[in-house]
Amino acid sequence: MAKQLSIKPLADRVIVKPAAAEEKTAGGIIIPDTAKEKPVRGTVVAAGPGKKDEPITVKVGDTVLYGKYSGQELPIEGEDYLIMRESDILAIV
Amino acid sequence: MAKQLSIKPLADRVIVKPAAAEEKTAGGIIIPDTAKEKPVRGTVVAAGPGKKDEPITVKVGDTVLYGKYSGQELPIEGEDYLIMRESDILAIV
Amino acid sequence: MAKQLSIKPLADRVIVKPAAAEEKTAGGIIIPDTAKEKPVRGTVVAAGPGKKDEPITVKVGDTVLYGKYSGQELPIEGEDYLIMRESDILAIV
Amino acid sequence: MAKQLSIKPLADRVIVKPAAAEEKTAGGIIIPDTAKEKPVRGTVVAAGPGKKDEPITVKVGDTVLYGKYSGQELPIEGEDYLIMRESDILAIV
Amino acid sequence: MAKQLSIKPLADRVIVKPAAAEEKTAGGIIIPDTAKEKPVRGTVVAAGPGKKDEPITVKVGDTVLYGKYSGQELPIEGEDYLIMRESDILAIV
Amino acid sequence: MAKQLSIKPLADRVIVKPAAAEEKTAGGIIIPDTAKEKPVRGTVVAAGPGKKDEPITVKVGDTVLYGKYSGQELPIEGEDYLIMRESDILAIV
Amino acid sequence: MAKQLSIKPLADRVIVKPAAAEEKTAGGIIIPDTAKEKPVRGTVVAAGPGKKDEPITVKVGDTVLYGKYSGQELPIEGEDYLIMRESDILAIV
Repeated sequence: MAKQLSIKPLADRVIVKPAAAEEKTAGGIIIPDTAKEKPVRGTVVAAGPGKKDEPITVKVGDTVLYGKYSGQELPIEGEDYLIMRESDILAIV
Repeated sequence: MAKQLSIKPLADRVIVKPAAAEEKTAGGIIIPDTAKEKPVRGTVVAAGPGKKDEPITVKVGDTVLYGKYSGQELPIEGEDYLIMRESDILAIV
Repeated sequence: MAKQLSIKPLADRVIVKPAAAEEKTAGGIIIPDTAKEKPVRGTVVAAGPGKKDEPITVKVGDTVLYGKYSGQELPIEGEDYLIMRESDILAIV
Repeated sequence: MAKQLSIKPLADRVIVKPAAAEEKTAGGIIIPDTAKEKPVRGTVVAAGPGKKDEPITVKVGDTVLYGKYSGQELPIEGEDYLIMRESDILAIV
Repeated sequence: MAKQLSIKPLADRVIVKPAAAEEKTAGGIIIPDTAKEKPVRGTVVAAGPGKKDEPITVKVGDTVLYGKYSGQELPIEGEDYLIMRESDILAIV
Repeated sequence: MAKQLSIKPLADRVIVKPAAAEEKTAGGIIIPDTAKEKPVRGTVVAAGPGKKDEPITVKVGDTVLYGKYSGQELPIEGEDYLIMRESDILAIV
Repeated sequence: MAKQLSIKPLADRVIVKPAAAEEKTAGGIIIPDTAKEKPVRGTVVAAGPGKKDEPITVKVGDTVLYGKYSGQELPIEGEDYLIMRESDILAIV
């Protein structure tokens, strides 16, 4: 499981640890990250407080699906993370 | 009938199982999915809670029409689904 | 007269049965559908509930004018219908 | 004077009978309709109820100025009318 | 001084009589209308009531500065006027 | 010090007297106006009342920084001024 | 540590002192500023009061991450700073 970060995203931003490619969940969902334009899976490691009147919905530890090209790369201690807006997240698995 | 998924779409997102091509409903509606630019039919298998002050209207099990190019492909357990915003859904059949 | 459909459009969407070309109303209004860029006439066969705080204005049976290129084609039981937003409708005749 | 139509424009739409070219009002205002990009004059023959919280301002019979390229042509009983949004109307003469 | 017009602009529209080129005010302000991209000066001859919750600020008789390319030409009784939105007006001199 | 003008900017507009190039403030801040894309410094000589529910923040006499290409040139009595929106102003020095 | 500036940014603007390249924090986070399209790190040296109903979140002294191309360069006393909107800041480290 991805560790929790001490970084505090602002507003509606979320930091996600992308899942390793071709990983398979307990429920059997497979989402190859080589697929083009298809959502990919990751784990939320940090989430902002949300925007005015719109508290954030996802929480640290959630496995989420997001668009393949969502977010910005954010390398921390040699590992790759993504920082994106909550609206880039499609669903919680 | 399409099974219900354990995936929870965020906000106003909906997961739809597209109908097989050239299928014919009890009421006799035929919508070939090879038709260009015409709406296609599917079944809602998961729906988010809606956005702030706008609860979602469709529910799991609804047969819906949506634009041919709406949504993103979402392969789950070898089957093809689509994840789209509720505003991409035109009507409930 | 166009029959009523069992399809329920979402939000502010309306399904219209386009009038036959060169049809002439009791009031004598002629709107040839071969005219370019001019509004065309049709009959509302289904209407959604409207959007939040904006109930829909047209009702089933209304003869309406709408822009020639408004809406998406929607073939039902061999007949051609259009599905469009209420804002695409210009006037009730 | 332009007759009143039985057509009911929706929302903030207005139907205008364009004035004949080079017409001269009692007050002596001349606005040739051959002038490029200059406002033209017409008479309101039908007006919608306005939009939510914004009742319409012009009324049937008002002589109005509007941009030369505003609105869509709407032929009714052999005469040419224009249907436009109230925001396309610049002033009441 | 520019005379007052009987034209009633709608909403936030204002009719302005452009000043003659190279005119010089009492206070000595010179704004040549041949200057490119620089504001030009004129006198308000008619003003609308403003928009919903936003009453209009300028009044008939005010000398105003506005962008050189603001508004539409409006010839009235052989003289050139401009009709523009109040937001096109930069300042009252 | 720049003199105060009798011009009254509308809404959220501000008139600024740009500082001479390479000027140096008491605090030693140097902002050469030949630098490309860097903010430049000037003095507020007139400010509007602000927009509805948004009173203006800067006041006459404030030294401000603004984007190099902000505003429109406004020559008054042989001197060059700029008229811009308050949102074009970055900071008060 | 970056010193506090006497400059007062307007509204939701923030002045940031970019960190030196390849710097390493106590927590071991390394963000090389030669990386393309990746967030970079800096210290907040001045922050505006925020916008209407949206007080600013970051405060002077916060170490923040922001997009590589965010903000405008602002040279003060020979040192390079950036002035940006708070929405350009991704997270507080």
